[in-house]
Amino acid sequence: MAPFRNLPDATVLTDPDALEPYRHDESHVLGVLPLAVVRPRGPAALKELVRLAKAEGFALVPRGAGTGKAGGCLPTGQRAVVVDFSAWPGELRVSPQDLSLSAPASALLRDVKAAAAAQGFFYPPDPNSWESCALGGTLATNAGGPNACKYGMTRHWVLSVEALLEDGEIHTFGISSVKANAGPALGQLLIGSEGIFGFIVGATLRLTPMPREYTTLLLPVKRWQDLLDLPGRLCGAGYLPSAFEFFDPAVLSELRAHGPEEARRLPGEAMAILEFDERGCTSEPFLEGLLDLLGPVAEGLEVASDERQRQGIWAVRRMTSAFLKERHPKKVSEDIVVPRSRLGEFFAGLERLGIPSVSYGHLGDGNLHVNLLAAGETEPALLERQLMDLFRLSMSLGGTLSGEHGIGLAKRDAFLALSDPGQIQTLRAIKQALDPQGIFNPGKVI
Amino acid sequence: MAPFRNLPDATVLTDPDALEPYRHDESHVLGVLPLAVVRPRGPAALKELVRLAKAEGFALVPRGAGTGKAGGCLPTGQRAVVVDFSAWPGELRVSPQDLSLSAPASALLRDVKAAAAAQGFFYPPDPNSWESCALGGTLATNAGGPNACKYGMTRHWVLSVEALLEDGEIHTFGISSVKANAGPALGQLLIGSEGIFGFIVGATLRLTPMPREYTTLLLPVKRWQDLLDLPGRLCGAGYLPSAFEFFDPAVLSELRAHGPEEARRLPGEAMAILEFDERGCTSEPFLEGLLDLLGPVAEGLEVASDERQRQGIWAVRRMTSAFLKERHPKKVSEDIVVPRSRLGEFFAGLERLGIPSVSYGHLGDGNLHVNLLAAGETEPALLERQLMDLFRLSMSLGGTLSGEHGIGLAKRDAFLALSDPGQIQTLRAIKQALDPQGIFNPGKVI
Repeated sequence: MAPFRNLPDATVLTDPDALEPYRHDESHVLGVLPLAVVRPRGPAALKELVRLAKAEGFALVPRGAGTGKAGGCLPTGQRAVVVDFSAWPGELRVSPQDLSLSAPASALLRDVKAAAAAQGFFYPPDPNSWESCALGGTLATNAGGPNACKYGMTRHWVLSVEALLEDGEIHTFGISSVKANAGPALGQLLIGSEGIFGFIVGATLRLTPMPREYTTLLLPVKRWQDLLDLPGRLCGAGYLPSAFEFFDPAVLSELRAHGPEEARRLPGEAMAILEFDERGCTSEPFLEGLLDLLGPVAEGLEVASDERQRQGIWAVRRMTSAFLKERHPKKVSEDIVVPRSRLGEFFAGLERLGIPSVSYGHLGDGNLHVNLLAAGETEPALLERQLMDLFRLSMSLGGTLSGEHGIGLAKRDAFLALSDPGQIQTLRAIKQALDPQGIFNPGKVI
Repeated sequence: MAPFRNLPDATVLTDPDALEPYRHDESHVLGVLPLAVVRPRGPAALKELVRLAKAEGFALVPRGAGTGKAGGCLPTGQRAVVVDFSAWPGELRVSPQDLSLSAPASALLRDVKAAAAAQGFFYPPDPNSWESCALGGTLATNAGGPNACKYGMTRHWVLSVEALLEDGEIHTFGISSVKANAGPALGQLLIGSEGIFGFIVGATLRLTPMPREYTTLLLPVKRWQDLLDLPGRLCGAGYLPSAFEFFDPAVLSELRAHGPEEARRLPGEAMAILEFDERGCTSEPFLEGLLDLLGPVAEGLEVASDERQRQGIWAVRRMTSAFLKERHPKKVSEDIVVPRSRLGEFFAGLERLGIPSVSYGHLGDGNLHVNLLAAGETEPALLERQLMDLFRLSMSLGGTLSGEHGIGLAKRDAFLALSDPGQIQTLRAIKQALDPQGIFNPGKVI
């Protein structure tokens, strides 16, 4: 690849064997082979890449650690260069006085969280891939996780971003304080934009004090409908969970029938895991008040009183994902959101529409992982129809077709087909304004 | 005004006496007389207004309750129509299950907060004008307040917005859940955009449980520099204040010398007000731990143990603004932000540059109200230079020229002069894309 020979401050891969892994992320989508993979180590490489992309007419596709679940980092067109940010330089720096942490896009989220924790601080976003994903990817996709029901998404914890724009330069949007009203929030536009307006290369994150205690509960219930209004009832009574996961009756039956030994004794029609992380949440009065609220719906209740028991309860959640994946390797796991007040209607709708699925996930914010277990054996056109019905149902109830994973490549067609045309037009107008030559991650989202 | 005669579902004012108040907000800037003021009562009026604005070439200037401090709602050009949203219809609706509240732009923030509180929920944004400002204005300006140091700004508490765009239609961006990743966050772009891309007519807000207890402290300190790293030290030790206000030595001297009776006995070189609102914050162990941290820097300390005492402490804060305003009616109060770790350098810089000022405000997030008390007696060109020096100093330390009030008309020139040209160009490109005819609040921000 002649044009890349003189790229300053970058590693360039062009060997097809080395390029092959870049066709994959953790979605079911497959990208095409890129022209090259570039690992920039400084702004000069990016500047030259942007110049080349415009001059030679190729696309730039950003990639963090490749743990995305929507194909957002996969090359699609025949002339694409993957910009792999894993070698992007920069230090993890905590500023205790500013309650902030600066980090390059290449930092692993695990290391970001650890650097904060080492000084008594907490960085809340916790996508499932938190031990392996790169910060840059979590910014590009506005990553979530179980903690979102209390702490919000990645965008709620970003003070400023540094981003490569179409002029080939890196610009900083925001400052190292939660207060800043100097013009519209371009940083917020970039966070979660999946690289279609520019590439985020670093950020300053907001921190909060590290929780000092946890109460974690495994809550089997007699009637699974009792779970649906529980988040609202708890919060109205002053109890804000830092995680509220659930498992529907079908998932629980499947676990009981075919799961590992420890799953066979799980009681109840459905089940939830609740966690609290505020000061005093292990005190007698807190627990008494909480158990008063949970008692009437619970069928047995396990309360973790130490870290080992806490991890034991979370193991049930981890086991569920792994177990379902092992038993149904070709299952399709969706990522819809339904406002919590409409969850009853949603489950009734799934039945009415005949969408064969089991659900678990983040009940605390209405983000459900609806699993079509038989996807592998379903005729593709039928599967497609079931998925579109699922998205339409979620949206008709005021929800959306992605809570965490984003649109990327995997949901682009559905997103375009089901969204308000005015919104799509608005996004396209902004895309055209910020990237008139279409060099940044084309073919994604819109 | 012939074109407005047939405007459906709206009240139209054209009498110059009725238009006069619309030249003012709570800034020092004066707008021109608009062609008319329109109070729409439904989407049909807005659609027709947009059509007329394009056809007849006039500008639309949005207005909530007119409590803004940057002139963002003032007409500037000779052909402007003020769109006064005070009659915009809609109910305040709390959805406990969704932990959310829907409200029209016309709702007063005071009523939004009360509707949430009535059901045990808390909507944190608390700009100084919270008892009189309209929700729409707080969304357009991304309003802050003392609570921001714990809870963040308005944008952190908005789940979805309904906004009028250039096509004359009202579009909804976002859903009633904190989890939503279906495309870039257009709602976040609109929040804080001061009406230059479109007008927000309603929103769904995120709620959290209402705090059940408060600890409020009046903290005079021996050496005022000891205050500067206190927010970071508290948070590193697990104490996150819900407000951290401060008063510099000059403000305190002024209060002691000329303030009301109760101010004359205030001890210390400088002073802070801290508030905590988490569960257990009135307990012995919490207070003991906190006093261990504060003791070494404090010179006397007043702890409110009931609501009457709490209001007594906050009265000191309110008294300060009112007292300074009364004694120096022509003072200029700025709204800069400096990252907390750079506050020492900032105050040294103020002295070095000879900017005669006193400061108080939100130390918890670095958002300071720097007051040029002698502004009324200062030669305009000199005052202008002092303000520009102040903005430059804040920005050179990684801060910004507005923390809460926004840019509007008042800071537009400074914003354009001091910002990264690439950012201004990006904002202008988006403006051109979303509002090619420039009908939405022209002459503001950019």
